[in-house]
Amino acid sequence: MRPGTSAEYLTDATEAQNLRGRADAVALPGSAAQVADVVRWCYAHDVPVIPRGGGSGYSGGAVPLDGGIVLGLERLAGVPRFDAEYWRVRLNAGVRTADLHHRAREHGLYFPPDPGAAEQSMIGGNIATNAGGPHTFKYGVTGTWVTGLEVVLAPGELVQIGGAARKDVAGYDLRSLLVGSEGTLGVITAATLRLIPAPEAALPIVALYPTVAAGCAALRTVLATGLVPAALEYLDGGALAAAAAGFPGGLSAGAGMMLIAEADGTPSGASALRAELVEALSHGASVVRAPEQPSEISALWRWRSGVSPAVIAQRGGKLSEDIVVPVERLEEAIAETVAIGARHGLPACSWGHAGDGNLHSTMMIDRHDPDQLTRARAAAHELFALAVTLGGAVSGEHGIGAVKRGALGLQWPAPALALHEAIKQTFDPKGLLNPGKKLALASEPSVNGVDRGPRSG
Amino acid sequence: MRPGTSAEYLTDATEAQNLRGRADAVALPGSAAQVADVVRWCYAHDVPVIPRGGGSGYSGGAVPLDGGIVLGLERLAGVPRFDAEYWRVRLNAGVRTADLHHRAREHGLYFPPDPGAAEQSMIGGNIATNAGGPHTFKYGVTGTWVTGLEVVLAPGELVQIGGAARKDVAGYDLRSLLVGSEGTLGVITAATLRLIPAPEAALPIVALYPTVAAGCAALRTVLATGLVPAALEYLDGGALAAAAAGFPGGLSAGAGMMLIAEADGTPSGASALRAELVEALSHGASVVRAPEQPSEISALWRWRSGVSPAVIAQRGGKLSEDIVVPVERLEEAIAETVAIGARHGLPACSWGHAGDGNLHSTMMIDRHDPDQLTRARAAAHELFALAVTLGGAVSGEHGIGAVKRGALGLQWPAPALALHEAIKQTFDPKGLLNPGKKLALASEPSVNGVDRGPRSG
Repeated sequence: MRPGTSAEYLTDATEAQNLRGRADAVALPGSAAQVADVVRWCYAHDVPVIPRGGGSGYSGGAVPLDGGIVLGLERLAGVPRFDAEYWRVRLNAGVRTADLHHRAREHGLYFPPDPGAAEQSMIGGNIATNAGGPHTFKYGVTGTWVTGLEVVLAPGELVQIGGAARKDVAGYDLRSLLVGSEGTLGVITAATLRLIPAPEAALPIVALYPTVAAGCAALRTVLATGLVPAALEYLDGGALAAAAAGFPGGLSAGAGMMLIAEADGTPSGASALRAELVEALSHGASVVRAPEQPSEISALWRWRSGVSPAVIAQRGGKLSEDIVVPVERLEEAIAETVAIGARHGLPACSWGHAGDGNLHSTMMIDRHDPDQLTRARAAAHELFALAVTLGGAVSGEHGIGAVKRGALGLQWPAPALALHEAIKQTFDPKGLLNPGKKLALASEPSVNGVDRGPRSG
Repeated sequence: MRPGTSAEYLTDATEAQNLRGRADAVALPGSAAQVADVVRWCYAHDVPVIPRGGGSGYSGGAVPLDGGIVLGLERLAGVPRFDAEYWRVRLNAGVRTADLHHRAREHGLYFPPDPGAAEQSMIGGNIATNAGGPHTFKYGVTGTWVTGLEVVLAPGELVQIGGAARKDVAGYDLRSLLVGSEGTLGVITAATLRLIPAPEAALPIVALYPTVAAGCAALRTVLATGLVPAALEYLDGGALAAAAAGFPGGLSAGAGMMLIAEADGTPSGASALRAELVEALSHGASVVRAPEQPSEISALWRWRSGVSPAVIAQRGGKLSEDIVVPVERLEEAIAETVAIGARHGLPACSWGHAGDGNLHSTMMIDRHDPDQLTRARAAAHELFALAVTLGGAVSGEHGIGAVKRGALGLQWPAPALALHEAIKQTFDPKGLLNPGKKLALASEPSVNGVDRGPRSG
């Protein structure tokens, strides 16, 4: 255990909205048994424990709101153990997402979830947030791929739930309950993941449309054809304007929407699918490009990963909400994001996973201007209400963390909220596991400019 | 509510092992609100409520062990509401699985889970057991496809969790917790399901091997090639012998194992994959057939669905356990199933979902012979222990129900078992929802020849 705190352990990607916490110590355990030791000590001494992966989350899930021990999992890394011939891997929570991707490829395998910041994020954090990414459209979110979890439960017990078997309906689905629980029900230390043979080819198609309406019409055309792209992404005009400078080959100004699809499969299958996608995406498009060179393709996806930083660079900060809506409501949600920003005097834009109806609805702010932050938070609340009104959810990827307290109350009926709180109480009766995060309801006086929810229990 | 009981509501597919219960009444509600009324009445009067779908389960999950009200959901049917252009459907719990399949096809869509007895089983029961089937290998189990649930929670509240949005990480995953909970946490009344565009072609390949070792070697070859069949099924020699008479075109005697793979996709993609699968499956095979005519193909799958009844027909009854193991342990599990049967003086065989390592390990019995039943139950306990020893799970498809009480204790560590019981207590504090089912531990004096677990709480 390391006494004191280091600044980098006090925030995460919410730094862009000025969220920074306070911790009493940082612990960097070197084994799952040491993680259990830390949790046991914290539970015995009534000290909060804040699990931390790569610190790339957008909800403040890894931020210590009011003291306690930050439990950094980066030393729980090591080399993933592949059973390549059986399409699976067992690995520790601290393995970086990009490292898993690269090593899987070396074995001819593929781990589809690909959240942003893959070089920084860790698989434990990906599981704890049930991370998504562009390829979720065809392949599902992180939890889809988890067959086994090693986890430290309160008051400090290391247990294994599931394993290498691909199916298991014996008990209640504790695995899925822990996936996405944001460190509030237990600390994930290792996992067994299903993988699939890597598609031999993955060919993107980029299409630009003059308006959001035209782009969403093309999206509907793609879905109506029954083609299944591996990814189906979008950027609205504001996001395109922010990120245009880095686009490989350059972008002409004034586009209202971009769609990016990917055709994967065998070389011939991907090629045939690409041709059909090009045709479907061409409806109403001003430009359609289908790069073929590996260098062009990787440049495109690298650019796509850089959209979020490019948007931040506009004004130095952003507040981005990952709302999700039924796909037919995407057009309204994109338009309304901009309108909500305008009502609060903030430039707004969105991009994200069009096929999943999952936006990153973003207010661009100067994070050192408290008034802009306040207005952005009011706008965020309207975005949550919008998502629920459109039949969607307040979070498709980032979770509730610290910054979306109260949002679940907009979405769930009271009996479900009561069960949410009861489950927290069951797993963490002292309310010491990542307190103030993923709360069903409620808020408390603010800490550091951000309201802090009560500890459960 | 219908006074008294009708015999058909007192058992399910466990009738083949002589399980029959006792109920005070059968309720057949015509709406979700009426389901809530029944649960509310039962909760107010301390009366057990036993939800029932198609009654095709193999674990006695729908059997009223000791009185209470059987809540039959067959009147909650109606026509599924497709949003075909957005690849989804909302439907009531009482819709038959086969009806969903047929209607989805009419819309060019596909609902992959395909448990046996699809003409009898209902989607509510499929969700409550997280049903699988042959196509789970490529496409995942029922829960993979559920985006929204309408459910009656104790003490009688009708709530909606999730909906049409394809992603949602806002709250703890109550949806996954309810999926597979076998009616012990709530009563599912309706669901929203994701679908996919129907593959245009689905071409089976059947291969016969002289021994289980040869068949499992071919299975490993298929996986090592990185080909992804939609289904990868097997039958061992005993199952083949039982079902041989009905095999389309006839089977020569003496085969030790059959593998059935399916190549799906576009016509050209499926055809290319089929050719590669034929090659991979040919290693060590005595016969490889790849039927092309739709009538041949449907005859093959119809035959596959009839394997279970054909095995029952051998001696009038069976006790079949759906254990699951890591796929590399399938060969041992197949051999050990037969050996366990032999040790208990019972003919045994297995078949199932080879790619998922999921066996239906079966003891053939005369169900009217109490001694054979007793020996089969002892054999089942050894099968559970075998699955756990091999790193697998005691149930891959059928759940714990009434007949696998205690089995989860072999598989899960004590802290997880305690959470399992605490979750039951949280959702159902009076222990009235399907009492005696899906218990984490424990058993009570037997009812009707089957031990009955305690009511939770």
